[in-house]
Amino acid sequence: MEVCGIDPGLEVSGYAVIAINSRSTTIREAGICRTDPHAPLPERLAQIEADFNTILERWRPQAVGVEQLYAHYKHPRTAILMGHARGVILAAAERMGVTVYSFNPTQVKRYLTGNGRASKTQVQRAIMASFGLTTPPEPHDVADALAIGLCCANECRQTQRQVARV
Amino acid sequence: MEVCGIDPGLEVSGYAVIAINSRSTTIREAGICRTDPHAPLPERLAQIEADFNTILERWRPQAVGVEQLYAHYKHPRTAILMGHARGVILAAAERMGVTVYSFNPTQVKRYLTGNGRASKTQVQRAIMASFGLTTPPEPHDVADALAIGLCCANECRQTQRQVARV
Repeated sequence: MEVCGIDPGLEVSGYAVIAINSRSTTIREAGICRTDPHAPLPERLAQIEADFNTILERWRPQAVGVEQLYAHYKHPRTAILMGHARGVILAAAERMGVTVYSFNPTQVKRYLTGNGRASKTQVQRAIMASFGLTTPPEPHDVADALAIGLCCANECRQTQRQVARV
Repeated sequence: MEVCGIDPGLEVSGYAVIAINSRSTTIREAGICRTDPHAPLPERLAQIEADFNTILERWRPQAVGVEQLYAHYKHPRTAILMGHARGVILAAAERMGVTVYSFNPTQVKRYLTGNGRASKTQVQRAIMASFGLTTPPEPHDVADALAIGLCCANECRQTQRQVARV
């Protein structure tokens, strides 16, 4: 089963397709989708939509995890523009019938390290340990997508266990 | 030639398809697209996308006018959610090759009344006069879409005049 973690952004969106089974978690594909900052907004959004259509069609993940956006109140302009990008990604996932989970940064940190206020380095170490990486994942958009992907994988495992118990 | 004015919103989006020629401006179709507030966000966004795909495919407008979103800094949560809705609408317009114009509320008021600080009533009267309506357009989402549509029509006329002059 695959899940996809996404860190949505207007200029750079990180994504990570993760294969999960009962024992292991493996990175299938991870990277960034970039738009031209000089292009008009509608063109950039159509580009993001096309990129994520391609990724979701290629992997047909069972679920998609995205960052909750309300964390960015302090930078309203950026948050509103990220909202545009997040909107087209969520609509693309819905069109493909993929379940979407949202996670706020505290949830992500708590799941990965046990501490909702963990530092960036602690989160990086947790990601490296989960995937057996020897260096921290770069750029940070991919690292964030991997972290969200791990939360999403956990959410799917829990749902499966609940279904199995019923 | 038709243009479409849109007032994007997650719960209610207003739209107005306007036919323009050198002398007159006529409403072809105007209304609202509504989403279920209890439905998950991705489902609501896919609904907005489907509704606007239908409207844009039906009328194939030359241009779409939308409200600029930065005006809503004071309500960041609402602005971010509106950003999601606006994002899918802009991507839908881009996919269909429709030119998109953005207008901030001051521009809209100035174009309609000559005063960027005009009251709601003054704006309503200007819309009624433009379309020969005997009562103010309702609900306000449709009124806003009509106002943006008039700005968009003006923008298209000016562009045509500039092209004619060259």
